[in-house]
Amino acid sequence: MDMVYKKSIETRRKILSVTKELVLQKGWNNISVRDIAELAGVKNPLLYYYFRNKQGIADHIFGSLILKTLDYAEKEVPFKDDGMLSHFLYVSLYYRILLENELYQKLYMESTHPFDSPVENVDEYDLNYMVTKQFDEIIKSYGANLDNATLKAYTISAFSVATSIFRNIIAGNLELGYKEAMFFVTRFWILSAGIDEKIFEEKMNKAIEMALQVDLESFVSDED
Amino acid sequence: MDMVYKKSIETRRKILSVTKELVLQKGWNNISVRDIAELAGVKNPLLYYYFRNKQGIADHIFGSLILKTLDYAEKEVPFKDDGMLSHFLYVSLYYRILLENELYQKLYMESTHPFDSPVENVDEYDLNYMVTKQFDEIIKSYGANLDNATLKAYTISAFSVATSIFRNIIAGNLELGYKEAMFFVTRFWILSAGIDEKIFEEKMNKAIEMALQVDLESFVSDED
Repeated sequence: MDMVYKKSIETRRKILSVTKELVLQKGWNNISVRDIAELAGVKNPLLYYYFRNKQGIADHIFGSLILKTLDYAEKEVPFKDDGMLSHFLYVSLYYRILLENELYQKLYMESTHPFDSPVENVDEYDLNYMVTKQFDEIIKSYGANLDNATLKAYTISAFSVATSIFRNIIAGNLELGYKEAMFFVTRFWILSAGIDEKIFEEKMNKAIEMALQVDLESFVSDED
Repeated sequence: MDMVYKKSIETRRKILSVTKELVLQKGWNNISVRDIAELAGVKNPLLYYYFRNKQGIADHIFGSLILKTLDYAEKEVPFKDDGMLSHFLYVSLYYRILLENELYQKLYMESTHPFDSPVENVDEYDLNYMVTKQFDEIIKSYGANLDNATLKAYTISAFSVATSIFRNIIAGNLELGYKEAMFFVTRFWILSAGIDEKIFEEKMNKAIEMALQVDLESFVSDED
C-alpha cells in the first residue's frame, strides 16, 4: 500500500477514535473541532481536509455503523435470498446498538439533527438510495407496486418514524420495549404497501432473534 | 377591559405582526430579536417578557394557526358528531395553508426544527395532548383499542411523517400533490390501527373537499 495513502487512513482513523473517546468523556455538545484536532495530534486545517465540519465527523461515524450493519445482514441473509428478512436484520441490529451502546446513543441524541430525513441531507453514503432500493425490491417481491414518488415517500416516512420513536424512547418519553418498537417502526409501511401481516410478523420475529444473538461489544469495537 | 391587560395584548399582537412582516421581507434566518423589537417599538427585555426567545415567537405563530384550524374544523364538523372527519378537516386545512401561504411556508421551512415531535418540546398549547385525545377517540369509535404507549407512538409518528413529507414537498424533493400527500400522511396510522380503508377514504375525500372551499386569504388574515 502507498505510504501516503496509508498515513491518510491512519490520520482519519485517529480523528474518529479520538472523537469517540471525547464524546464518552464530555458529550458531543461540549467538544470542539479544536479539542478533537488537539487530542488527535493533527492541525485544524488537516482535520477539515478529512471532514467538512464537526457534524461531518458524527455523520461519518453513523454512516460507517449503518454500512457495517448492512454488511452484517447481507452476510447472514443475502438480500437476493430474502430481502425482507435481510432488511429487517439490518434495521434491528442498528436500533439495538442505539438502545444498548452508550457511545452511539449519546452521539445519536446529541449530534443528529433531530429528524432530518435523508432526502434533505447531502448523503455521502448513498444510504437513501440503498434503502429506497431495498423497499422497492421488498414491495415488488410481494406483488405490490408503487410509483416512484410514493416509494420515496415511504423511505422518508420510515426514516422519520424510526428516528422520532427511538429518540423518544431513549429520552424516556415513550415506554416501548425494543421488540415492540421494531414492530412499530416497520409495520406501518409494510401494511400500507399491502403486504400480508403474517409474513411480516414471521420475518420481523426472526430478524429480532438474529439481531439479539450478535455480540454487540465485539461488533462495535471493530475499526471503521 | 383592564387597560394594562389591553395594552399587553396590543404589544404582543404588534410583535407578532411585525415578525410576520419581517419574515416575508427578509426570511426568518435573517432577522434577529433586536430587529423585531425595534420595528415593534418595544425594548428587548419586554419582548422576552412575552416570548421565551426568538423560537418562541415562531412557535406561537404556528400554535395560533393550529388552534384556528382546530376551531374551524370544530365549527364545521363538531368532533363529537364525526371525529374522523373533524380531525381530517383540521389537518387538511392546516397543510393546505402550508402549501399555499407564503408566510407560513417560509416560517415552517426556516423556523421549525426539522422533525421535532411534540413530545420532545415544551408545548404551550397542549397540542400533543389534544391530538393524542383525537386519535384515541377516533380509534375507539371504530372499535379498535390501543394501549397508551402505542397511542403516543402513533401521535409522534403522525407528526414526524407529516412534517417530513410536507417539508420534502415544499423543498421540491418529493412530487406528491396536496391530495395524495394528505392521504399518505394519514393512511398509515388509520390502517395500522385496523380501521376500514373504505371509511377512511370517504372521510378523507370529504375533508379535503371542505378544506379546499375555505377562502385562505381571509382565513389567515384574521388576527391571532
